[in-house]
Amino acid sequence: MIRRKFLTSAAGLTAGTAVAAMPMSIAADKKQLVHHVFFWLKNPDSVEDRDKLVEGVKTLSKIETIRKMHVGVLASTEKRDVVDTSWQVSELMFFDDTVGQKTYQDHPIHQAFIKNYGHLWAKVVVYDVAEV
Amino acid sequence: MIRRKFLTSAAGLTAGTAVAAMPMSIAADKKQLVHHVFFWLKNPDSVEDRDKLVEGVKTLSKIETIRKMHVGVLASTEKRDVVDTSWQVSELMFFDDTVGQKTYQDHPIHQAFIKNYGHLWAKVVVYDVAEV
Repeated sequence: MIRRKFLTSAAGLTAGTAVAAMPMSIAADKKQLVHHVFFWLKNPDSVEDRDKLVEGVKTLSKIETIRKMHVGVLASTEKRDVVDTSWQVSELMFFDDTVGQKTYQDHPIHQAFIKNYGHLWAKVVVYDVAEV
Repeated sequence: MIRRKFLTSAAGLTAGTAVAAMPMSIAADKKQLVHHVFFWLKNPDSVEDRDKLVEGVKTLSKIETIRKMHVGVLASTEKRDVVDTSWQVSELMFFDDTVGQKTYQDHPIHQAFIKNYGHLWAKVVVYDVAEV
C-alpha cells in the first residue's frame, strides 16, 4: 500500500520534497493493528537459540499482509522495576486490520515457522493493539 | 521489502525524486529502539478512564526524541490462550537509541504525564527492544 500511494503521489507531483513527504504522512495517519509477540526461550541463556529464533521470525516477513515488521532482542535500557527483561525475542508487526492479522495467523509460512522453530520457546505472550 | 520496491521505482524516476526518497530509506534501515508500555487501569472497565489515559499518552508525542508513536487499546483479534487481553492502554514508541529513550524518560513532559495521569493506572509493564 505504501508503494501504491507513492506511485500515485509520484505521478502527480514535480517537487521532490513533496513526493518524499507524502508516504510518511499517510503511514502516520492510518490506524493500524499492532501485533507484538514476546518469546521466552527454553534455553534463555543460549545466544545460539536466540539467533536461530530471530532468523525464524524473519522468515515471516514474506507474509503479504504484514505492512511493517521489527524483530528484536533485549535493549540495554535502564533496569527499572516496571521493565520486563525476562523475555529473549520480540516480534513486532503492523497489519491494516484484524483480517490481515488473521490471514497471517493461518498462513502456511506462519505454520511452517511454528513447526520449525516452536521447539525453541517455552512461552509466548501476544499483545494485539488497535491504534486510536 | 516494500521499501526496496519503492527505491527501485524511485531510481527510474527523475533525479530529484530519487534524492528526495533518501531520508525515508535511511529511516527505514536504521535499527531502532522499541519502547512498548502496557497500562492496567485501576478501573479496568471505565472507558472514560481509558480515554483519559489515551489522551495523556498522546501528550508525550511532543518529546523530540520520539521518532514514531502509536497509542492503542485492545484489538478485537481472536482470543487465544497466548494473547494477553488484561491490559487497557498501549504506548508504543520508536527511538534512535537508548540515549533518546533516556532523554524521553527524564523529560519534563513525561514527568508531567506521570504526575497528571498516574492516578489512573494500577500497573505498568515496559518492554524495551533493540532491533536486530
